[in-house]
Amino acid sequence: MNYIFGKRMNSIMHGGDYNPEQWLDRPDILAKDIEYMKEAGVNEATLGVFAWSMYEPREGEFHFEWLKQIMDNLYENGIYTILATPSGARPIWLDNTYPEVMRVDNMGNRNRHGIRHNHCLSSPIMREKISLLDQKLVEEVGNHPGLIMWHISNEFGGECYCDLCKRGFQQYLRKRYDGDINKLNHEWWATFWSARYNSFDEIEPPFKNGQTAIMGLNLDWKKFTTQNYCDYISVEIDTLRKYAKKEVPITTNFMKRFWDIDYRTLAKKIDVISWDSYPFFHNDQESFADTMLESGFDHAMMRGLKKDKPFMLMESAPGKVNWSPYNKLKRPGVHKQFALQTIACGSDTVQYFQWRKSRGAAEQHHGAVMDHLGTTDTRIFKEVAETGNVLKKIAEVEGSIPQNKVAIVFEWENWWAFEDAGGFSWHTKKYDTTCMEYWKALAALGVDADVISANDISNEYKVVIAPMLYSVTEAIADKMKRFVENGGTLLGTYIMGYVNENCLCYEGGFPGAGLSELFGLISEEIDTLYPSDRNGIRFVSGNEDTVLTVKEYAEILRVHDAEVLGVYTDDFYAKQPAFTVKSTGKGKAYYQAARCEDQALIDLLEVVLSSTDITCTRLAKGIEKHTRYTDDFAYTFYLNNSDENAIFEVVDGENLLSGEEVKGSVEIGPKECIVIKQWKES
Amino acid sequence: MNYIFGKRMNSIMHGGDYNPEQWLDRPDILAKDIEYMKEAGVNEATLGVFAWSMYEPREGEFHFEWLKQIMDNLYENGIYTILATPSGARPIWLDNTYPEVMRVDNMGNRNRHGIRHNHCLSSPIMREKISLLDQKLVEEVGNHPGLIMWHISNEFGGECYCDLCKRGFQQYLRKRYDGDINKLNHEWWATFWSARYNSFDEIEPPFKNGQTAIMGLNLDWKKFTTQNYCDYISVEIDTLRKYAKKEVPITTNFMKRFWDIDYRTLAKKIDVISWDSYPFFHNDQESFADTMLESGFDHAMMRGLKKDKPFMLMESAPGKVNWSPYNKLKRPGVHKQFALQTIACGSDTVQYFQWRKSRGAAEQHHGAVMDHLGTTDTRIFKEVAETGNVLKKIAEVEGSIPQNKVAIVFEWENWWAFEDAGGFSWHTKKYDTTCMEYWKALAALGVDADVISANDISNEYKVVIAPMLYSVTEAIADKMKRFVENGGTLLGTYIMGYVNENCLCYEGGFPGAGLSELFGLISEEIDTLYPSDRNGIRFVSGNEDTVLTVKEYAEILRVHDAEVLGVYTDDFYAKQPAFTVKSTGKGKAYYQAARCEDQALIDLLEVVLSSTDITCTRLAKGIEKHTRYTDDFAYTFYLNNSDENAIFEVVDGENLLSGEEVKGSVEIGPKECIVIKQWKES
Amino acid sequence: MNYIFGKRMNSIMHGGDYNPEQWLDRPDILAKDIEYMKEAGVNEATLGVFAWSMYEPREGEFHFEWLKQIMDNLYENGIYTILATPSGARPIWLDNTYPEVMRVDNMGNRNRHGIRHNHCLSSPIMREKISLLDQKLVEEVGNHPGLIMWHISNEFGGECYCDLCKRGFQQYLRKRYDGDINKLNHEWWATFWSARYNSFDEIEPPFKNGQTAIMGLNLDWKKFTTQNYCDYISVEIDTLRKYAKKEVPITTNFMKRFWDIDYRTLAKKIDVISWDSYPFFHNDQESFADTMLESGFDHAMMRGLKKDKPFMLMESAPGKVNWSPYNKLKRPGVHKQFALQTIACGSDTVQYFQWRKSRGAAEQHHGAVMDHLGTTDTRIFKEVAETGNVLKKIAEVEGSIPQNKVAIVFEWENWWAFEDAGGFSWHTKKYDTTCMEYWKALAALGVDADVISANDISNEYKVVIAPMLYSVTEAIADKMKRFVENGGTLLGTYIMGYVNENCLCYEGGFPGAGLSELFGLISEEIDTLYPSDRNGIRFVSGNEDTVLTVKEYAEILRVHDAEVLGVYTDDFYAKQPAFTVKSTGKGKAYYQAARCEDQALIDLLEVVLSSTDITCTRLAKGIEKHTRYTDDFAYTFYLNNSDENAIFEVVDGENLLSGEEVKGSVEIGPKECIVIKQWKES
Repeated sequence: MNYIFGKRMNSIMHGGDYNPEQWLDRPDILAKDIEYMKEAGVNEATLGVFAWSMYEPREGEFHFEWLKQIMDNLYENGIYTILATPSGARPIWLDNTYPEVMRVDNMGNRNRHGIRHNHCLSSPIMREKISLLDQKLVEEVGNHPGLIMWHISNEFGGECYCDLCKRGFQQYLRKRYDGDINKLNHEWWATFWSARYNSFDEIEPPFKNGQTAIMGLNLDWKKFTTQNYCDYISVEIDTLRKYAKKEVPITTNFMKRFWDIDYRTLAKKIDVISWDSYPFFHNDQESFADTMLESGFDHAMMRGLKKDKPFMLMESAPGKVNWSPYNKLKRPGVHKQFALQTIACGSDTVQYFQWRKSRGAAEQHHGAVMDHLGTTDTRIFKEVAETGNVLKKIAEVEGSIPQNKVAIVFEWENWWAFEDAGGFSWHTKKYDTTCMEYWKALAALGVDADVISANDISNEYKVVIAPMLYSVTEAIADKMKRFVENGGTLLGTYIMGYVNENCLCYEGGFPGAGLSELFGLISEEIDTLYPSDRNGIRFVSGNEDTVLTVKEYAEILRVHDAEVLGVYTDDFYAKQPAFTVKSTGKGKAYYQAARCEDQALIDLLEVVLSSTDITCTRLAKGIEKHTRYTDDFAYTFYLNNSDENAIFEVVDGENLLSGEEVKGSVEIGPKECIVIKQWKES
Repeated sequence: MNYIFGKRMNSIMHGGDYNPEQWLDRPDILAKDIEYMKEAGVNEATLGVFAWSMYEPREGEFHFEWLKQIMDNLYENGIYTILATPSGARPIWLDNTYPEVMRVDNMGNRNRHGIRHNHCLSSPIMREKISLLDQKLVEEVGNHPGLIMWHISNEFGGECYCDLCKRGFQQYLRKRYDGDINKLNHEWWATFWSARYNSFDEIEPPFKNGQTAIMGLNLDWKKFTTQNYCDYISVEIDTLRKYAKKEVPITTNFMKRFWDIDYRTLAKKIDVISWDSYPFFHNDQESFADTMLESGFDHAMMRGLKKDKPFMLMESAPGKVNWSPYNKLKRPGVHKQFALQTIACGSDTVQYFQWRKSRGAAEQHHGAVMDHLGTTDTRIFKEVAETGNVLKKIAEVEGSIPQNKVAIVFEWENWWAFEDAGGFSWHTKKYDTTCMEYWKALAALGVDADVISANDISNEYKVVIAPMLYSVTEAIADKMKRFVENGGTLLGTYIMGYVNENCLCYEGGFPGAGLSELFGLISEEIDTLYPSDRNGIRFVSGNEDTVLTVKEYAEILRVHDAEVLGVYTDDFYAKQPAFTVKSTGKGKAYYQAARCEDQALIDLLEVVLSSTDITCTRLAKGIEKHTRYTDDFAYTFYLNNSDENAIFEVVDGENLLSGEEVKGSVEIGPKECIVIKQWKES
Repeated sequence: MNYIFGKRMNSIMHGGDYNPEQWLDRPDILAKDIEYMKEAGVNEATLGVFAWSMYEPREGEFHFEWLKQIMDNLYENGIYTILATPSGARPIWLDNTYPEVMRVDNMGNRNRHGIRHNHCLSSPIMREKISLLDQKLVEEVGNHPGLIMWHISNEFGGECYCDLCKRGFQQYLRKRYDGDINKLNHEWWATFWSARYNSFDEIEPPFKNGQTAIMGLNLDWKKFTTQNYCDYISVEIDTLRKYAKKEVPITTNFMKRFWDIDYRTLAKKIDVISWDSYPFFHNDQESFADTMLESGFDHAMMRGLKKDKPFMLMESAPGKVNWSPYNKLKRPGVHKQFALQTIACGSDTVQYFQWRKSRGAAEQHHGAVMDHLGTTDTRIFKEVAETGNVLKKIAEVEGSIPQNKVAIVFEWENWWAFEDAGGFSWHTKKYDTTCMEYWKALAALGVDADVISANDISNEYKVVIAPMLYSVTEAIADKMKRFVENGGTLLGTYIMGYVNENCLCYEGGFPGAGLSELFGLISEEIDTLYPSDRNGIRFVSGNEDTVLTVKEYAEILRVHDAEVLGVYTDDFYAKQPAFTVKSTGKGKAYYQAARCEDQALIDLLEVVLSSTDITCTRLAKGIEKHTRYTDDFAYTFYLNNSDENAIFEVVDGENLLSGEEVKGSVEIGPKECIVIKQWKES
């Protein structure tokens, strides 16, 4: 299906985390909540995220009456419920009675009760106890008419080094290496430093004071942990599905560029992608427009996890958060602009953490719709309510999706592998932000890009950019070759194809797995520059006056049969190739040998795109553009994220926000947006 | 009584820590010590601070002969003894035989023998063993004619997470919350993150790898630790009192703005306040005069702990210390100037750590009166001796006390609560230094201020300043209201009244507990600025050209019935109120909504004081002024802390240092001081 | 003997670590290795450094066939073997079966399997198991004709806090203090902070959460650890000697200015000094020439450990390393220049880590001769091969040694003692780099210096410089006195003679142990300056316009009977003595009271040297000069480490690299070297 839910909501979802269990002794508050939600245009509430100790205050003693009453009340007032399973935090009796449910850290010390994300994913008792609770939830409210989605646990993260997990890891490895310890020894290159194993039972996780020098082990540990999350979430999902009569979709909330878990793998377990976004607006390092672009990239990465359907913004702060280095106020209008960008990038929801500020504990000062003041005449409430209104105006975009022709590859396993690699610089690896730099450079050219897995490279895209793909499998290399042969344009970069999926270096020249042939070159050496070092790339023909500024990494190439487009300007490798292209079949494979600064990257990508039929239009500074499509319509969002009025050309159509027809050039104020609906070009 | 001791010493006390037990095999050294003490004008020695292993080298084997001999010798030479109880460091047999006396850290690991401040305050064995030792001390030398004071332990600090302390904490909570676990759950807002407790027995201290997300728990843990210090010190004090025939006052030495313990609570247990002061003179961040002002503030904070009597400077370094980042030499004359400031601020003693440098171990390079060189012709010795002389000249100030009309509120519980609060910035909270900024700004206006508890707000003061009083109880709010009604001038600031005493946010608008009515406004939002951000406050009438520079925090107000004195100059809240006043009864309540830079704070306070009958006189840069009073006389100290001669107006009277009459304008050299005695105005 | 081996190799050794056990399944690779080694002029391979798990994959199951085959192959191709004992990394069965072999950290936690340098030096089982393995190695290949040296373990380092080590420490102390605990109490000044011990059995190592405040304990712990390394290595050496029929020299590889171990003590156990050098070339803090000078100093320190014979460069990276903050490529020509400097400074070998890059694990990206590419047409291989050629041209220098007349004292025990001393600044102690600054200043004056122990002070040298000799024994002070009396020129500096060998301060004035008499002065105080502070030294007569810039430390002197050569320019000690000299017997004792900046140090040393018959010739910027001697010849190396051609005067003779005669002035290109052979002056 194309939409988040089986049926259309007939609106953008607007709501968020609601924790009425904190206010059960305050019927006045609970009554006002309903009244004010309606005033704010809220049509959804996420319940029960941390309610285990309320559901089951003592082992086997359950209380769901309050939940049913809240859900009834909400539903009667037109507000749907997303119901969380409460595994995000455990009641104290569980930890005290069964210490195995608490995690063990990388020094081997078991945590104590209290750390929020702290349950051992392997623990049979944890799995049993949460299953029982989930079953009760289904039995009690699983058929409630207001229930529209399950939300498993909360912001999964972290890892556990207990014996249960250790045995799970050994089992994982036994399977991965076909029960052949010498296969593992080879792939882990364990002869190095005398690290050879005689059996899988000897293997330990990479304890901080143990074996951390084997890249293959470190990487397998990360993969195992993701696998363990998948196994764990399956237990919860299976319970919900087993006892439910009513089929409602399932999600779990993800986080920004999250290191701990390969979300692509975990995403396969759930029905809908949802995530929690908290940009640091108005910081002291970048412009507001830059922060917005970063937010756009993060949405793109989430959307890419299930790109055939809209995603959900499960959490955001209507005001400020409580955990950034400087919790500066969101300036007026910023919340609405952020919400519109969210929709523009493919979300069908705008949700908050949380509806009402908690009076005490760690998040008492985290932004919420309702302040401690308790009234609706606050700036924040009014901005939320205005956002609710705006979302109603553009409700018809629900279910539409972007259709991009350019993709950027981002791989968790590559991220893990490269971050663990010596020989570069620990300070300048920047894999995730480098992928973002490509996305932002494309955005500056008016091109919206998907963020995908290397496994998803296909000719559905015209251009694929694979930044710093340090780890490449034979299968991915084959995909790339076929992609180019069939007419695709591929851009590979420095630090590509150094190792295989187990962090073993390729022999015979980088990029390995046959990619050196695809690009027509070998990277013989890589120079890791100090922060103050700079080099340049000069185009060989055409715009020879343009020098692209190079920083941080520069490879020295042996070009075999590629065309040299640019050469280095400085140092002992001056005049040597830095930017090349080789045609294969119907397509082209570009290679960028050095890291470029922002503006240089825009110039370089323009060259790459110019050989395709993708239109580049340099947008004015601070202007952002996104389009979503239904079968019949295209909805184009233009956001002005600059501090000035902006006048520019737009597509013709109807501005959903004003209801007016627009054509040609329009003027948009700072932090304003227009949403233009037009018949889809076909 | 008005003086430190039952009887007047007839002089300022001049002495310090003396550790003859390190030199018992060196009668030549011991003999010289007496001779040189007399040469330096020393009349006191603090003995036995770390002598437990000498008193009781093996369990139950006691040796006090050496102590008696030393005390006799000192007394025969006119030198009194302050005798410490030796719990500041434990002998190794105690730790080895009874490991429970060693502390457990916040990860649950028990410390090993050797860390100085390392005894579990709860341990019954520790309490028993130190009591026995204290009893022996009393029996052996408790009636010695030279004994004038007990000094309990040394520089209390730190905390312990052992099971004994955990049970003590549970007991403390049981009492505090009337044995009602749900009362605790409510005040701790424990429903948040599923943290509800079923019984007090389940509660653990805030272990680093445990429950740290409950502000109420964290704050109660701090309060409990202070309570545990009080219980512990009571054991020692009770022992001394029980076995002593002679009544001598008791102190323990405090430290600068000390985080671990609420000194106000602990101060109630002792008879006299004494503290250890080690300013970083000649550093690279501020002028000498600024360092001196900081020192003045620190004295004021100590004096405020028992403001009806003089305090003691129990330790200071005649030379440099051994633990500052850069141990720069105290420049010539600085020691005497510092000593005179100490007296000016209300101390009746100038004491050193230590008399003679230890040949080995951690403090061998810490400044002392006697250097390893061993002679009295050193610069340091000569400055100490000169100081001894000067103290004799001003001996009559002993027992006089300051009588200030302005007070600044500083609360440990508020400090703890606010430091633990999310949503601001961890880098710019600066509660203690902000309080100091107010004190320094007042000093620049020639106004000496007390530093008091909010509980001590009373119309004894004309002006009370309560900076950043994040945590306010109903009782304190009432005190403030009565203070204003009765004619007081109150200055409240940004971040006031956000939470109650258990860190629960007030509902209905900040400042809570009724203070919004007193100030006539609500603070709706607070902006946390980045370090590079600035705003300003422009006065509405009067000196409209003056803009007070604002940094770090700025609240956005809703003014109900206060007069707006100043408005913001910039950002989206430009022209909105930033500085207000509301009259109630006979008094006024000012509200300062944003943090001001130094000079701006002086300007703002001048406005506040101008509505009172307190005289502001902007002192020349680097000039410091303090006054102490007896029933008959006023003693005014003027310190020139600049690098130039200064000429300025002084009160008329006799300069005790020169014996000359002064009148009108005088000239004072750099790092010089005059002390003017005059009949008290009445 | 004068050479590394019993017999001359008739060539400079050129080779490095070779780990064929990683490639036993790849005969193609093994065959190419031999072929390529010959192509690169390699005549040595270091085998078996981490091969324990290959030798003995399971307890008692041994495999040496592969080793014998490799050694045969190498030998048949003219390549000698240095054979390592494999204790640098332990097989997993050893750790799992006998956990006592794994170290315990300074918090008392036992490490896990995997950390490379992780065996307890005290463990009887570790000693037994490695002995057995070593015995087997000797039996299997001990008489192999290709075997020319044993290489014990690898890069010893670290320490262990287990009970075995604790008991060893107690035993060490019992011996050191003659079984008299009160002697220890006195020397440790244990009465301080009540730390007195009743018996040696009570003493613990300086655990992080235990006793760290006793300088004597901390220092003895360092000494004990070195002693434990000596004991441990003796076990391995004794095994090799006991079972070997063939006498081959023994080494172990050292590291740059290595904190953990007193190499002077450990060096006595081995026959030849070898070390691993990895300079950070082309960094962003200094010039290439400065990096080279630092490298020269490090060579000098190693050479000083056995100064009557050449040393070995056991490891170096032909390309970049994998662990520097920024792994920048070694620029073209740098490797050869570095290799020639190595020989110039007294090494007879140039060896690499490693021959071939490992495909996986922690060092896969560490530079090696053979890249993953696998061919010999790489820049790195060609530079290695060229270096091999150049080494052949200068083969006759083998066995020659430098003969320097100036020595700089560097003492590990002083380093440890001073680093642990409070009262200075933790940020600016810089003992090792200060010694280097003296070496570099001498190099700028054309003077090559030895780096020696204070115990080696003798009139073999004309000038001895003892920077910051904080800890001085009576014996060393006597050596200094005799040195001066017999005509030597001694330069002492600030922070000299503060403590004895147990960190007890000297009484009666610094420098202690009679040195104040030798220098004719006492240092009364020391000023520790902030980084932004500066002072100066102005010469009293002569070049009075020169002001030597002073930073960080400045002592205030009492000069008794020394001549004042320079005085301070600023601060309260302006015009007081800062640089003095006193003649005693036939020699002179200079005293430098403050730390000088680089250029100032050159000026100061020129004054000191001008009173001797040592010729100072200020070399042009970037030029470096070293000379090695045989009985008949002098070989002088001139390195141009600047970026420009340089023209300068050289000694007359034959340039071994070109075969041409040189005379007078020559021109050398950047990163070029000439090696001039001449009949030795006699």
